[in-house]
Amino acid sequence: MKYQIILASASSRRRELLAQIGIPFTVQAAEGEEKCEARLPQKQVEELSFHKALEIAGKAEGNVVVIGADTLVFFRGKPLGKPRDEKEAAGMLKTLQGQTHQVYTGVTLIWHHRGALRQRSFHERTDVTVYPMTEEEILDYVKSGEPMDKAGAYGIQGLFAKFIRKIEGDYYNVVGLPVGRLYQEMKAEGLLQ
Amino acid sequence: MKYQIILASASSRRRELLAQIGIPFTVQAAEGEEKCEARLPQKQVEELSFHKALEIAGKAEGNVVVIGADTLVFFRGKPLGKPRDEKEAAGMLKTLQGQTHQVYTGVTLIWHHRGALRQRSFHERTDVTVYPMTEEEILDYVKSGEPMDKAGAYGIQGLFAKFIRKIEGDYYNVVGLPVGRLYQEMKAEGLLQ
Repeated sequence: MKYQIILASASSRRRELLAQIGIPFTVQAAEGEEKCEARLPQKQVEELSFHKALEIAGKAEGNVVVIGADTLVFFRGKPLGKPRDEKEAAGMLKTLQGQTHQVYTGVTLIWHHRGALRQRSFHERTDVTVYPMTEEEILDYVKSGEPMDKAGAYGIQGLFAKFIRKIEGDYYNVVGLPVGRLYQEMKAEGLLQ
Repeated sequence: MKYQIILASASSRRRELLAQIGIPFTVQAAEGEEKCEARLPQKQVEELSFHKALEIAGKAEGNVVVIGADTLVFFRGKPLGKPRDEKEAAGMLKTLQGQTHQVYTGVTLIWHHRGALRQRSFHERTDVTVYPMTEEEILDYVKSGEPMDKAGAYGIQGLFAKFIRKIEGDYYNVVGLPVGRLYQEMKAEGLLQ
């Protein structure tokens, strides 16, 4: 069975990652839900990714696999979303500097198999340790504009690389899509023939 | 004191990483030594990075900081260099798949301070865990050409991302330059004013 793969995300970073591992796909961005009922970080990101995948799967026809993904940054169990303004961005960075936090990406695959809808959701967690940052470094980084569209107010793949001490887990999970795990899951489900 | 920063490496990956963190620099590629006397992985990469930095520092004039770097992949304490041919590349990948290995990058900074030559060498270690790979996946990856100019026969920043289960340490250290640690060391030595 040959599937057409649809990425249900407007994120250019996710698009680049999927292209990087050589999987052909098209993009149909889902609006997504802002709210979710789950409490646990791993359940929150899986639920949010499920909403995105379902939204696009509902409109799709033919042999398609829809990939939904959602990334959240957690510090001591509390989620940090995208900052609303520079002040909030500086506050988030002040929280994260010198500490270890968790990045969760939830992924949901939805596809048809012999007339039945099938679904697989999973998540990856990566621990990220940030070097201590001075007030000046935080303000300079906020001024670069990089934090504004990113959960937790930083982009590990950009300028912020110089403040990362170490990670434990998948790097690409922090960028926004755990491509190693995604490839393994799709392979196991026979979605990559 | 304002320093001109020279990267003593021909690697386009190291150049991109240094540019990514916003440090202005020029490139003067060192030939480097193939041999080194050290036995321990961390000493080997530091020694090799020192040879590169010294080679360029010996030709440089004015207020310069020279950055030398060397990356080696170790499996159970044995170094894996760049594969000489496709067969060797496939052999290395067969060794690494399904296992955890170590990537060490050594970095040496050489600069002048008040008429005296100063030096600082350090290293970072990252543990990389690779998913099990089939014979076919190994051959396909070798055919992509990506392994040929890379220590350990893979590029974490390329197609190989889909075979990475997790890492522990700095991601950029695996790409070839631990930019977080490098930035911190240069800041501490007052080389970034």
